[in-house]
Amino acid sequence: MSEKYVYFFGDKTPEDYQGKELSEMKPILGGKGQGLAQMGVNGLPVPPGFTVSTQACKSYYENGQAFPANLEAQVEEKLAQLEALQGQKLGDASDPLLISVRSGAVVSMPGMMETILNLGLTDEAVKGLAAKTNNPRFAYDSYRRFIQMFGSTAMGLSKEEFEGEFERFKEEKTGGRLGRAHGEEVEDTEMNAEELEGVCEVLKTKFKELAGEEFPQNPKVQLMTAIKAVFNSWMADKAITYRAVEKISEKAAIGTAVNCQTMVFGNMGETSGSGVAFTRDPSTGENIFYGDYLFNAQGEDVVAGIRTPVKLEDLQEQDESVYNQLMDVRSSLEKHYKDMQDTEFTVQEGKLYMLQTRRGKRTPIATFRIAVEMVEEGLISKEEAISRIEPEDIERLFYPEIDPSIPVATRNDNYLTTGINAVPGAAAGQVYFNAADAEAANERGERVILVRKETSPEDVGGMAASKGILTQTGGKTSHAAVVARGWAKCCIVGCDSLDISYDNDQLTIKGTGAVVKAGEFITLDGSTGEVFKGDLPLIDPTMPAEYETLMNWVDEVREINVRTNADTPEDAAKAISMGAEGIGLCRTEHMFFETQERIDAIQEMILAEVESVRRDALAKLLPFQRGDFAGLFKAMDGRPVTIRLIDPPLHEFVPHSEEAQKRLAEKISVPFETVKNRVDSLHEFNPMLGHRGCRLAITYPEILEMQVQAIMEAAVEVKKGGQAVAPEIMIPLVMHKKELSILGGKAREIAEKVLADNGFTKEEIPYMVGTMIEIPRAALTADQVAEEAEFFSFGTNDLTQTCMGLSRDDAGRFLPDYVDEKKAGVFGADPFQSLDQEGVGQLVEIGLQKGRSTKPNLKVGICGEHGGELNSVKFCVRIGMNYVSCSPYRVPIARLAAAQAAIEAK
Amino acid sequence: MSEKYVYFFGDKTPEDYQGKELSEMKPILGGKGQGLAQMGVNGLPVPPGFTVSTQACKSYYENGQAFPANLEAQVEEKLAQLEALQGQKLGDASDPLLISVRSGAVVSMPGMMETILNLGLTDEAVKGLAAKTNNPRFAYDSYRRFIQMFGSTAMGLSKEEFEGEFERFKEEKTGGRLGRAHGEEVEDTEMNAEELEGVCEVLKTKFKELAGEEFPQNPKVQLMTAIKAVFNSWMADKAITYRAVEKISEKAAIGTAVNCQTMVFGNMGETSGSGVAFTRDPSTGENIFYGDYLFNAQGEDVVAGIRTPVKLEDLQEQDESVYNQLMDVRSSLEKHYKDMQDTEFTVQEGKLYMLQTRRGKRTPIATFRIAVEMVEEGLISKEEAISRIEPEDIERLFYPEIDPSIPVATRNDNYLTTGINAVPGAAAGQVYFNAADAEAANERGERVILVRKETSPEDVGGMAASKGILTQTGGKTSHAAVVARGWAKCCIVGCDSLDISYDNDQLTIKGTGAVVKAGEFITLDGSTGEVFKGDLPLIDPTMPAEYETLMNWVDEVREINVRTNADTPEDAAKAISMGAEGIGLCRTEHMFFETQERIDAIQEMILAEVESVRRDALAKLLPFQRGDFAGLFKAMDGRPVTIRLIDPPLHEFVPHSEEAQKRLAEKISVPFETVKNRVDSLHEFNPMLGHRGCRLAITYPEILEMQVQAIMEAAVEVKKGGQAVAPEIMIPLVMHKKELSILGGKAREIAEKVLADNGFTKEEIPYMVGTMIEIPRAALTADQVAEEAEFFSFGTNDLTQTCMGLSRDDAGRFLPDYVDEKKAGVFGADPFQSLDQEGVGQLVEIGLQKGRSTKPNLKVGICGEHGGELNSVKFCVRIGMNYVSCSPYRVPIARLAAAQAAIEAK
Repeated sequence: MSEKYVYFFGDKTPEDYQGKELSEMKPILGGKGQGLAQMGVNGLPVPPGFTVSTQACKSYYENGQAFPANLEAQVEEKLAQLEALQGQKLGDASDPLLISVRSGAVVSMPGMMETILNLGLTDEAVKGLAAKTNNPRFAYDSYRRFIQMFGSTAMGLSKEEFEGEFERFKEEKTGGRLGRAHGEEVEDTEMNAEELEGVCEVLKTKFKELAGEEFPQNPKVQLMTAIKAVFNSWMADKAITYRAVEKISEKAAIGTAVNCQTMVFGNMGETSGSGVAFTRDPSTGENIFYGDYLFNAQGEDVVAGIRTPVKLEDLQEQDESVYNQLMDVRSSLEKHYKDMQDTEFTVQEGKLYMLQTRRGKRTPIATFRIAVEMVEEGLISKEEAISRIEPEDIERLFYPEIDPSIPVATRNDNYLTTGINAVPGAAAGQVYFNAADAEAANERGERVILVRKETSPEDVGGMAASKGILTQTGGKTSHAAVVARGWAKCCIVGCDSLDISYDNDQLTIKGTGAVVKAGEFITLDGSTGEVFKGDLPLIDPTMPAEYETLMNWVDEVREINVRTNADTPEDAAKAISMGAEGIGLCRTEHMFFETQERIDAIQEMILAEVESVRRDALAKLLPFQRGDFAGLFKAMDGRPVTIRLIDPPLHEFVPHSEEAQKRLAEKISVPFETVKNRVDSLHEFNPMLGHRGCRLAITYPEILEMQVQAIMEAAVEVKKGGQAVAPEIMIPLVMHKKELSILGGKAREIAEKVLADNGFTKEEIPYMVGTMIEIPRAALTADQVAEEAEFFSFGTNDLTQTCMGLSRDDAGRFLPDYVDEKKAGVFGADPFQSLDQEGVGQLVEIGLQKGRSTKPNLKVGICGEHGGELNSVKFCVRIGMNYVSCSPYRVPIARLAAAQAAIEAK
Repeated sequence: MSEKYVYFFGDKTPEDYQGKELSEMKPILGGKGQGLAQMGVNGLPVPPGFTVSTQACKSYYENGQAFPANLEAQVEEKLAQLEALQGQKLGDASDPLLISVRSGAVVSMPGMMETILNLGLTDEAVKGLAAKTNNPRFAYDSYRRFIQMFGSTAMGLSKEEFEGEFERFKEEKTGGRLGRAHGEEVEDTEMNAEELEGVCEVLKTKFKELAGEEFPQNPKVQLMTAIKAVFNSWMADKAITYRAVEKISEKAAIGTAVNCQTMVFGNMGETSGSGVAFTRDPSTGENIFYGDYLFNAQGEDVVAGIRTPVKLEDLQEQDESVYNQLMDVRSSLEKHYKDMQDTEFTVQEGKLYMLQTRRGKRTPIATFRIAVEMVEEGLISKEEAISRIEPEDIERLFYPEIDPSIPVATRNDNYLTTGINAVPGAAAGQVYFNAADAEAANERGERVILVRKETSPEDVGGMAASKGILTQTGGKTSHAAVVARGWAKCCIVGCDSLDISYDNDQLTIKGTGAVVKAGEFITLDGSTGEVFKGDLPLIDPTMPAEYETLMNWVDEVREINVRTNADTPEDAAKAISMGAEGIGLCRTEHMFFETQERIDAIQEMILAEVESVRRDALAKLLPFQRGDFAGLFKAMDGRPVTIRLIDPPLHEFVPHSEEAQKRLAEKISVPFETVKNRVDSLHEFNPMLGHRGCRLAITYPEILEMQVQAIMEAAVEVKKGGQAVAPEIMIPLVMHKKELSILGGKAREIAEKVLADNGFTKEEIPYMVGTMIEIPRAALTADQVAEEAEFFSFGTNDLTQTCMGLSRDDAGRFLPDYVDEKKAGVFGADPFQSLDQEGVGQLVEIGLQKGRSTKPNLKVGICGEHGGELNSVKFCVRIGMNYVSCSPYRVPIARLAAAQAAIEAK
C-alpha cells in the first residue's frame, strides 16, 4: 500500500484523511495547509489547490533527496482534480490555470523558501492569459515576474543578475522610448506590453546562461521543480538555525509541506486588492477587527510596504462589500478556532479569497486580555485560557525593555557583543568593575552596571547596588545569574568576548577591540543577551487588569503550593505579592555579607584554630542571624519558612588577595602568614564536591548550633509578638542517613531547649527538621534518609551537577555544543534550566518514592532553579510533590505551570 | 522471662544454650569463653568456671553503666554450682575457692582489662590457703599480688604507688634482715612468709588511702567489682581506638564477656609450670608442635619473659608426662577446629589444665603452608583453604618491609611523622622535591624518594624513577596513590604534617620542626604510613611454594575473569605473571608523558587555535601511540585489551609556571601571552566535573580519530606478526546515549576503514566499542546507553565521586571523621577503597541490569580501584559481572575474592 502524500483543499467536501480528523492533520499538512483545508470545509472562500505533505518531505530526505516513488503520480492526480474543478488547464494556450507554490511547515518557520507565483506560465500559456484577461500587459508582466522568481527562488540562480538584466532593458528600451536621460529612473508601470514581452525573452536567455538549460516550457516540470525547491529549503542553514534557536527538534518538526494553490489576483484594478487581518488587536488584545488593506495589489506588496494601506476600520467606508465579506469570515474563524487569528486574503474583482489563517501572535498584554475576554464571551473555558498562557507572557509583563521604538540603526551602531541571557529585562548605567566601586557610585546616585569576570558571595553588596550585572564566565545557573534572578535584576553571563582588566578598570571586546572604561555608560538587554554602549532609553512594563483575573483562575485550578527562594524580608514581601505561599529556600550565607561587621565575624570564625575562638566569633553572628530570621518570619506571617543551614565551602567567605588578607590579619590581630596559610589550606580542587553543606556541620557542629539557636529564638520572638511562625530547618548536602541522624538530632535538641526555656511547645511553634536531596546517594537511599527527615527538598541544581558529572560553572565551555542541534545535540535544553527528566528526574522520582515508602506523608518540594521552569514544575506535579519553590519573579510562572499540569492530568 | 547472662563451663555436659549450638555461641560467650566451654565439652582438662555474657555488657551500657537486674543472682547461682563441683567455697577459711577474672570479647582486643588472679582471697581466706597448701609463704605472696592487682586493675588505683610501697617495705624489712646495703637489690623470693604478710597489711593501708574505702573482705563484692571493671574497660580509649583501627564496628563487637575461672597454679614447684603452645609453627607453618614452657611459673611470667622458657620440642626429655598430655590436647584441638590453634596452659603438680584456645595468628607464609597442608592431610577442603586466605596475606608476600629485627628504639629515634598508607611495602632513599631532580638522581644511581605536595601526570617520569613516593595531600585514590599502586611502589599520601618548600628544597615536619633537605635519606613504611629519617635496612619478601598451589585452586573455583589496569608492556607482563587474563583499563594519557617529544606534541595540540594545527600535532603523536598499543597487544598475546580514550581535562597537560610557559612559547613559536591565556582559559572551578572524557572528543573529534586509528593500526601490525589481538575501545565519561552514538559511530567508522585498508575483517580482528559507566546518569539510563555499547566498564572511582558528591582529592579534610567511629562514623570504610554497596552499589546494579535488559549478553566489568578490593569484588561477582580489573599487584587478591564469592554463593 503506497502512502498518501497529496491532499486536496478548497472544497466543502473534506478530503480522505485516511481515518484521521482534519483537526489532527497539522503534522501532515503543515500549518498553512491545514488552515486552508479547514477554511474550505467551513465554507469560507479559499482558492482551491492541494498540499504535498510533510511526510513526502521526510521521505525525500530519507531517500537521499529524491521524491518517493509515487509522489509525481499523486501530484498529477490532484492537479487533474483541480483543473476539473476550475475548468482550466495548466499551460493552456487559451485559459491557463496558474498556481502559487508556498512552503508550509508545522510551525511557522522563517528562512524557508518564499512563494513562487504564477506557476504554469509558458510561452504558450502567457498568450492564453493575455487573451483570457484581455490584458497582454498584465500577462507579460506576470510572465517576466515568474521567470525571475522561478530562476532565483526555485533554481537558486542569482537574483541580482536577473534584476540587472531587467533594469538594463528597462532603461534602454522604455527609457529610450520615453526619451529619458541615461540613468534617469523608469517606473515598471511605464513599460508597455511589447517591452514586457521583450524582457521575457532577455530573461529566458539569462536563465539559460545561468542554469545551463532552457527555461522549462513544460508546466508540470515547473511544478515538480518548485516542490523540490521547497523541500530543499527545509535544510537551508537559516532554517536549521531557526529551529535550533527556537528549540524545535528536527524530529518534532518532521519536514515542510508544500501548498499548490490556484492563483488569485489582487492587482486587477480598483475592485481588487490584498490585505492582512487579525481578528482582534494583537497589541492590546481589544476585540476589534485589526489589519491593513491595499487596493489593487498582491499580498507581497502589502508586506513590502510599497504604498500606505487602508486600516480595516476605515475599509467599511471605502468598500462596504469587501468589508462585510471580511466581517463574516472574521466571525466564522473566531467561532471555529476560539482564538485570535492572523489571516491573509486577496480580493479579485470584488470577490474575497482567503489565503491563510493561523493563530495570531500577540503581545503579553494582549494574551491575557484575549484569554480572559474569550472566557467572558463564553468562547473558551477557564482551563483553556490558562493553558494558552506561556511563561514568557508572564515574564515579559514584569521587566523593563529597551524602547522598541528607537531606530534599528541606533541599536546596530551601539552594539558591542552578546552573552548568555540569564535574567530578562533591560538596564542602562555606568560600568564599574568591583563591588566597592559599584556601591560607592550607587551612593552618589549613579545608575550602575557591575561588570565582573565572575561573581562570588563577596560581590553581593555591589550586585545589590547595581541595575544590571554582566559577567565574562558562567552559565544561567552561575552565582551571578542565580542571585540576579532572585532580584529580577537584568543579568548577562558567559560573555566570552569580554576581556576585563581589573588593573586598568576597563573592558575590551575581543575581536572589535572596543573599549569601555569605568564610569562609561552601557545598556544591557537581558532578554536577548545583547550589550550596547551608551545609555539607551528603556520603557517600563505595564500590567493588564486581566492578569489578576487569570492568575486567580490559576490558583483555583492548581493543586500544589508555590513557594519562593528568598533571603530577606524585602524579597519575601515581593514574593508574597507575586503569590508565594511560603519560603522554600532561605540561603543563610547571603546574610553573612550584609555588613562589614558580619563579614569580620564570619572570617574570624573561619580563621579560628580552636573551638573556643570559633564559638566567640559565632556568638557575634548570633544576634544578626536572629534578627534576619525574625524579619523573615514577620514578613511571611505564619507561612512556612525553610531555612537552609550554611552551605558553601568556607573558602568562599575569606579574602583571596594578599592585600585583603593583610587587612584581615591586622583586624583580628593574627600574623599575616597565619591568615594566608589558613586561606591556602581551604583551597579545594573541586569545591563543589568538597567540604561544604552538612559536612561543615559535622566538622564544626558549633556553626549549626548557632544557626538553629538563632532560628528558634527568632521564632519565639515573633510568636511572642502575636504572629504565627512555622520554621523548617533544612540540612544541606546529606549523602547518608547517619549525617542527618547526628545533625538533625543536634538541631532538635537545641530547638527543644529554646522552646522549653521560653515556655513554648512544639504545637505552638511547629518547627520541622528536614534535608535537601541534592546528591545521588541521598536519593538512592531516601528510604533510610526519610527515617530522620520531616521533609525533603530536592536541590536539583546540585543534583543535576552530580547526576551528570557536570559543573555548572565550567560547562559553558562545551554545554552549548551539547544543546546545539547542529553540533552534538545531546540535550533538547540546557539541563540547568529545564530539569533533565530522563536522567536527573529518575533520581528525583526514586528519592520521592523511597522517602514516601518510609513516611507516606513526607512533605516533598523542590528548591532548585527548576522550580520556576514550566516543564520542570509540571514534572514535579506529576510525580506528586507538595510544593515547588523558585525566585520571587518566577512565582507566577510556577503557579501557571502547576495549574497547567493539573489541567493536563485531567 | 529474664535473659540468661551467665553460662557454666568446664563440664563435659554442655550448658543450656537456650536452643543454640555451642559453636554459635561465640557472639555471646566471647572467643575465650566459647573456647573454654568447647574444650570442656570435648573432654579436655579445663579448670571449671563461668562466663558472664557479652549481652550482659551490652545491657550494662544500655542501662547507663548499671548491671541488669538479675545479673548478680545469676552469678551467685553459677558460683554455687562451681563451689559444689570443686568442693570449695569462695572466701572459705579452711579451703577457699580462688578465681581468675578475665575479659573475653568476640574478637581478641588488646587494650582491655588484664587478668585479675587469686580473687577470693581475704584476711580469712588467706589463712585457709596457707593451711590447705601448707605453704604460708605461697599464700601471702598470692594475697599481696591480689591486693595490688585488684587495686590497680579493678579499682584503677595507681600501680606505681602500690609498687613503691612494696619495694620500700622489701628494702627496709627483708633487706634489713639480710643486712643488705641501702639501695642494694632484694629478690622477691628472698622474702619470708611473715614479711609477705606484713606487706599485705601495708598494701591494704595504701588501698584505703587511695580508694577512700577499705579493701573489700567480702569475696562476692570483689567478684562483682572485677566484673564491672571488665565492662568498663570495654569503653577505655585504647579499646575504642583499637576497634576503629581494626575496623570493628561497635555494633559487630557487641561488648565483652567476663570469664571467671577456678585458679590453677603453675608456681607450685618443679612439677608445675605454665606455657603457650601453637599446634603448628606460626612463622613457617610447618606441622610441628611449637611453643614455650616455663617450669614453676604462672602464665603471666611466660609472657613477661622473666626466665628463659623450654621449647616444647625439648619438653619431652624434661617432662614426658606433661609432654604427652599436651600432644593429646594438640591432636584433639586440630581435629576439632581444623585449624592451627594458639593455646595457653598451666600444669599444677603434674596435671595439665587448658586456659585458652583460639585460632593462631600466623605469618602470610604460614597461612599458605598450613592451608595447603591441611587440605593434603584431609583436614579441610580446598574451598575451606581458599576462604581462610585474607587479602593482606597475599599483599604482604609481595612487598619488602623494614627489617623487623631492628631495635624498636631505632624506629622510635628515627620517626618523623605518619601519613596515609596508600601502597604497602617499604622504601628507603634520598629525598628529591621535583620530578626532574628525581630522574637525574636515579640516573646517577641513587635510590630516590620523591616528595611532592601532590603529584600530577607531569610528575610520572619522576615517580617512575623513585623507590617510593610521599605527598602532603590526597587520599588513597589520589593521583600519586593510583599510579604508585599500579607499580606496587611504596607510597604515603595525605601527610598533612609536611611543610614542603620547593623554593628551599626541603621539608619541615610541623610540630617537631624536623627538617629534611634534598639529598638526605628517609625511609617510608607504606604499610603503616610511617616516615623515618635515615636509611633503615629493608628485607625482601619471600614466596612460599604453597602460594602457587593455592592460587591454582582459586582459579579452578572462581567464575569471573580478572584483568589488570596497565599502561605499558612491562606492567602487562607483570600482571600476566600475577594471573591477569586481560587488560581492563589502559589509560592512554599516561603515554603522553613518556618523552619530551610527546609532551611537546600534546601541548602543541592543546594550544592550537585551529583544527588544522591540532591535526598536525596529533599526527606527530600517532606513531607513538601506535607503537605503545602494539607493545601492549604483543605482551597480552590475544587477551582482550580495553583502551580508554583520553580522559583528563586538558589543563593537566599544560605547564602552569610562568617559566615553563615561556619555554613552551619559544618552542612552538607563539607569543608567551598566547600560551598563558590559553592555559588560563583551561582553568576550571571543578575540573572533575568539567571538560574531560568524551566531552573532549565531542569538542575535538580529531583526538578520538587519531587514537582509534593508532589502536587499529597497532592491532593490524600485531595480527600481521602472527599474534591474535582483541582491542576494546572504551569511551569515557558518557552521560547520555547520544554521546556514544556520535563517538562510537565515529570510532567504528575509522576502525572499519583501517581494517578494510589492510584487508582484514572484524572476525579476524574482533574489536569492540564500549563505554565506561562512571556518571550516575549513565547508570540510570543504561538501557539506552547499551544500545550503542558492546561493553560496559564501571569506573567506580568517579562514580563514587559523583554519586556521593565527594571529591577524592579534597575529602581528606573531612572523610577521616566520616570513617572514624569515635567521630561521625558515617561509613564503615573509606568509600574510595571499599565500594559503598548501599549507595554507589545501587547505581552499579541498576546500570548492569538496565544494560542487560537491552543486551542480555552485554559484557560488564569494573575498572575502578575497587576492582582489587575483597568486598567490592565479591559484590561484583554477586551482581553478575563478567570481570574485574585492578592494578597488577592486586590481581591475586581479585582472583581470591572472586573464588571466595563463588564459594559463598554455593
